[in-house]
Amino acid sequence: MEQALKVSLIGVTGYTGIELLRVLVHHKKVKITSVVSRSDKGKKLDDVIPVTLAEDIADLHISEDIDPNTDIVFLCTPHEVSLTLVPSLLSRGLKVIDLSGAYRIKDKKAYEEYYNFMHEYPDILEKVVYGLPEIFREDIKNAYLVANPGCYPTATLLALYPFVKEKIEMRDIVVHAVSGVSGAGRKTRQIFHFPEMFGDAFVYSPLKHRHTPEMEDVLRRLGVNIFIRFVPSVIPVSRGMISTVYVKGEAVNDVLELFKSVYEKEKFVKILREPPHISWVRGTNYALICPLYDSKTGIYTIISAVDNLGKGASLQAVQNMNIMAGFQEEEGIDLKPLIV
Amino acid sequence: MEQALKVSLIGVTGYTGIELLRVLVHHKKVKITSVVSRSDKGKKLDDVIPVTLAEDIADLHISEDIDPNTDIVFLCTPHEVSLTLVPSLLSRGLKVIDLSGAYRIKDKKAYEEYYNFMHEYPDILEKVVYGLPEIFREDIKNAYLVANPGCYPTATLLALYPFVKEKIEMRDIVVHAVSGVSGAGRKTRQIFHFPEMFGDAFVYSPLKHRHTPEMEDVLRRLGVNIFIRFVPSVIPVSRGMISTVYVKGEAVNDVLELFKSVYEKEKFVKILREPPHISWVRGTNYALICPLYDSKTGIYTIISAVDNLGKGASLQAVQNMNIMAGFQEEEGIDLKPLIV
Amino acid sequence: MEQALKVSLIGVTGYTGIELLRVLVHHKKVKITSVVSRSDKGKKLDDVIPVTLAEDIADLHISEDIDPNTDIVFLCTPHEVSLTLVPSLLSRGLKVIDLSGAYRIKDKKAYEEYYNFMHEYPDILEKVVYGLPEIFREDIKNAYLVANPGCYPTATLLALYPFVKEKIEMRDIVVHAVSGVSGAGRKTRQIFHFPEMFGDAFVYSPLKHRHTPEMEDVLRRLGVNIFIRFVPSVIPVSRGMISTVYVKGEAVNDVLELFKSVYEKEKFVKILREPPHISWVRGTNYALICPLYDSKTGIYTIISAVDNLGKGASLQAVQNMNIMAGFQEEEGIDLKPLIV
Amino acid sequence: MEQALKVSLIGVTGYTGIELLRVLVHHKKVKITSVVSRSDKGKKLDDVIPVTLAEDIADLHISEDIDPNTDIVFLCTPHEVSLTLVPSLLSRGLKVIDLSGAYRIKDKKAYEEYYNFMHEYPDILEKVVYGLPEIFREDIKNAYLVANPGCYPTATLLALYPFVKEKIEMRDIVVHAVSGVSGAGRKTRQIFHFPEMFGDAFVYSPLKHRHTPEMEDVLRRLGVNIFIRFVPSVIPVSRGMISTVYVKGEAVNDVLELFKSVYEKEKFVKILREPPHISWVRGTNYALICPLYDSKTGIYTIISAVDNLGKGASLQAVQNMNIMAGFQEEEGIDLKPLIV
Repeated sequence: MEQALKVSLIGVTGYTGIELLRVLVHHKKVKITSVVSRSDKGKKLDDVIPVTLAEDIADLHISEDIDPNTDIVFLCTPHEVSLTLVPSLLSRGLKVIDLSGAYRIKDKKAYEEYYNFMHEYPDILEKVVYGLPEIFREDIKNAYLVANPGCYPTATLLALYPFVKEKIEMRDIVVHAVSGVSGAGRKTRQIFHFPEMFGDAFVYSPLKHRHTPEMEDVLRRLGVNIFIRFVPSVIPVSRGMISTVYVKGEAVNDVLELFKSVYEKEKFVKILREPPHISWVRGTNYALICPLYDSKTGIYTIISAVDNLGKGASLQAVQNMNIMAGFQEEEGIDLKPLIV
Repeated sequence: MEQALKVSLIGVTGYTGIELLRVLVHHKKVKITSVVSRSDKGKKLDDVIPVTLAEDIADLHISEDIDPNTDIVFLCTPHEVSLTLVPSLLSRGLKVIDLSGAYRIKDKKAYEEYYNFMHEYPDILEKVVYGLPEIFREDIKNAYLVANPGCYPTATLLALYPFVKEKIEMRDIVVHAVSGVSGAGRKTRQIFHFPEMFGDAFVYSPLKHRHTPEMEDVLRRLGVNIFIRFVPSVIPVSRGMISTVYVKGEAVNDVLELFKSVYEKEKFVKILREPPHISWVRGTNYALICPLYDSKTGIYTIISAVDNLGKGASLQAVQNMNIMAGFQEEEGIDLKPLIV
Repeated sequence: MEQALKVSLIGVTGYTGIELLRVLVHHKKVKITSVVSRSDKGKKLDDVIPVTLAEDIADLHISEDIDPNTDIVFLCTPHEVSLTLVPSLLSRGLKVIDLSGAYRIKDKKAYEEYYNFMHEYPDILEKVVYGLPEIFREDIKNAYLVANPGCYPTATLLALYPFVKEKIEMRDIVVHAVSGVSGAGRKTRQIFHFPEMFGDAFVYSPLKHRHTPEMEDVLRRLGVNIFIRFVPSVIPVSRGMISTVYVKGEAVNDVLELFKSVYEKEKFVKILREPPHISWVRGTNYALICPLYDSKTGIYTIISAVDNLGKGASLQAVQNMNIMAGFQEEEGIDLKPLIV
Repeated sequence: MEQALKVSLIGVTGYTGIELLRVLVHHKKVKITSVVSRSDKGKKLDDVIPVTLAEDIADLHISEDIDPNTDIVFLCTPHEVSLTLVPSLLSRGLKVIDLSGAYRIKDKKAYEEYYNFMHEYPDILEKVVYGLPEIFREDIKNAYLVANPGCYPTATLLALYPFVKEKIEMRDIVVHAVSGVSGAGRKTRQIFHFPEMFGDAFVYSPLKHRHTPEMEDVLRRLGVNIFIRFVPSVIPVSRGMISTVYVKGEAVNDVLELFKSVYEKEKFVKILREPPHISWVRGTNYALICPLYDSKTGIYTIISAVDNLGKGASLQAVQNMNIMAGFQEEEGIDLKPLIV
């Protein structure tokens, strides 16, 4: 591997960090030069993750800071940590892909309302690129900082984008999403203790979720000013999610063909005639979208499935890295699903 | 047990039949006089269901027809079978609680469109009572035939009824529901083979589901003419379901109090401030409802959870039986959930 | 309810405490006079458990100590807490059913080795009765302190007892058991965080588990001195367990009949010709046992299933209470399984 | 890809066939020239498997027979079908890897007793090689027919092999194994219908399972004549299995080091100090083994985990193909686990 891209991971022991490792250890053009975790610093990687996963990089020790020999840094850190790490890393001349929500929204007021912190880096917010390649690919190519999208916004914005691109008026957007539990992170909580979550399912944050302003903010950049009624819920699977998007609007001639034409050159977005299954995207970077129109109610129903750790987080982050580095976009992430 | 109500079950080996058995064997005012299943006729009950469930009625043999010594018959049969059994049973002077969809809709045209059969019993359709006690209790008391509601309509109509009762205008109703797999019945199917359904979830019948006309038909009886955009989906749990109902409408003063006042005398409907969990209703006859209003979008979000085999089927059928027989309404169905 | 038995629960918010509540609220001869939990004291019961479960005793507040108006106390407390609570409660003249392991073993040295504490109450250890009714029913009738058995010992000892009773020599006992996660308690742990436990299974404590000396100690009381090779494991279900017991020994004439005759008068032990399913005992007090002999290897295989929260903990505790109080043994615990 | 190995798959729509596809589409030295399925012949591959999996070979149509342009054939067919296909394919000069049990046992009498057919190909039975590379690698290199091992024998024989190799006497072998449901195949069955298997677990075929003679037969070839008390069970996961092996025997100096030395050059067998988790091998070709000795009972406990579709079936089949073709043994199967 000559002239490998040197990458470092901060926050490597969370689910998005582990998923990045799973892919990057086999990426032919990448060398992992350091892995960082404050809570596990000093340990060997295979002390904290199974040997079957750590094998090829078992010689790596978890450090407190990244190795200077780094080109791109992945941040798998909490929002508050990313917030202050980003300026520091950028000032060292590093490129950064931030998987947290700290730089996804341009409107800094949203951080006070939804994230409970003041955002003091307006200059960075102005330049940051939202890492949804199917919409912002050109900007990503030259970005120094990519805000990797949230899982719900990834599935939802891909479902809405054809309406935006084709200038079809949308009203009364309702987004009902179901997600696997890994979307809530690795930190234990009583409601996610196995005996309680097993056989359970529930809606959470039905009136105020951080991904609502993220979706609205991205739509605004694309010229659409609209509020979204977004309701997330959790179901008893580890990974995978479906966002079902309801849009009141005029009928188009053939919504299936419209979606197909918008995404025809996209490797990772497939338009289906039938509703997608979570299992069809498990472990992959695909988004599967089924667009439907009901003439009785005048409501579109667009069903969009992604793996919340794949296209919804870590694999999309690698897709962004590939674009930033000028690699083939599917390099290292052209993975097939474990359908059972 | 003097003067016990004599009941018979037809279709006893399906999930709703088994759930009826679980409750009726301990119902203090009921005696099961016969159990019918064409596929298992002649067998002893404990040949087809576990001994721990069959124990107290292990002497019963599965027969081909009900015992004449019967007051009320529960039909756990397919729609087409119920369709022709009902007239025959009524003509024998029996009371019938039908758990199928064959008599739930007053508008006979809907059967052609959604059930693929012609409905030739308009006189019975006129008299049949829809077995949702919280709305039609008085009619149930004197009914000879009760059409036991579908699981999705049960959860959804209970969520909508306060708007109807209080004459609050509703527009653009969207119902997104998630259900456990037992709702699809006991017959095996490839998509519900354990290795495929495990870790999976998907939307099905997104444009045309039989419960849509059922919900619309009941609303019409209550004076509300409206189309419902109803989308069901299946999640990897055995039992339990949540219907999330979105309604565009004007704000009321206090939607929580409004719902509480409508249901204040109802044992089995609880109004919650927070979204309900499926596990809180597992094995019970409760419906748990959380009504919310979002002023930015002007959309109500009402989250309604039931056990699809409990309040959504067999336990509600026993509730109807109790009302028809003049028993205490909670007799035999005042069960607590297995929250783990 | 005249002259109800007055019971109090200490440690009410753990899984065994909640399971006790589920049963006791409907027990016709019992009145719950107080519920104790140090961590939740002062709260109303329906602040910490779902309203559907707490309903009938929602007026109870969680207190720091039991109400003096108490006949029997259930201890759902950690071993160390039970250890010191028991002498204090006994000295107040109360009867106690302890669901912890603090008094299950007669040999006090085992506590140092397996529980990491010195046991300073040899007088109590001498008098305590092991609460496995099918073996020690007569002692339980007059007991002041019952040590409610562990889940693994319950399933395993019921599988071994016919050999003991019929004086069939046993050699090389191997016990391989699989358990639902609720057996490990309600406290969250990383390995039991839903995304990690989902789709997982593993052996734990393969060389040294606290239930090994418990099983050996009880066998010793019955006249059998033998070591047991006991290996527990955890599988991704909430509740239920199977203990598969391997015993080297001479063939008997008909092992199925032998087991049937030993347990023929027992309501809660059923001998089966085929291996039992966990789902057949879910939520019940039954033990299902299938005894087999393989003549090629000369090894018996006895498969024994219980619900770890039912016969393996809380429902067996109520069975013990019924015996101590002179009630019908199945009062309040004659429950049918949720087989789906 | 010059001079790619041309492979065909027969029985492509079962779980082992789909798992082979998942790996082979990305294998750099392989070209799939035909896929065969009698039940789906004529269909395009992406009509029967999700587009995300079929993508790169979507142009393939499912045929009734293999393409003549084939070097190696994988048989994912039922035992009876493989039995007669193998001689026919060998006579056409093709190499065959058979994933069924039709040629795993040398002793033809076992087929009558355990498989219900007479085995009429003694010459082939004599030459067939058992495809467990860690034991029979040299024979596999030159084999024309490889009988790919069963999942339970793979996990169990790898756990026993160090005793055989180091000539440590074994007595009273008990094997208790738990498996994911995919091990039972893709054909639907009532007990594996999702609502029934969810939350369930059970032992099956406790006295007579086809993998027992397979294990005994392989041990016999290695010079060890012994009966095995093998008891399989099924747990509610899609994939993954653990075989816990109990062996009565004399203590060795350091069983962990002994196992490590036997497998030190093996890429896919890892010896662990702690019991392995199923999740650590999910989707991989690894076997994880934890060997322990209990001096009180004189019994070894060896815990061995594999993915039943990975090392237990399809990935091991590709490992065999790599050896037969002279490729690097890990080519295309050096996959990391989805640990959530």
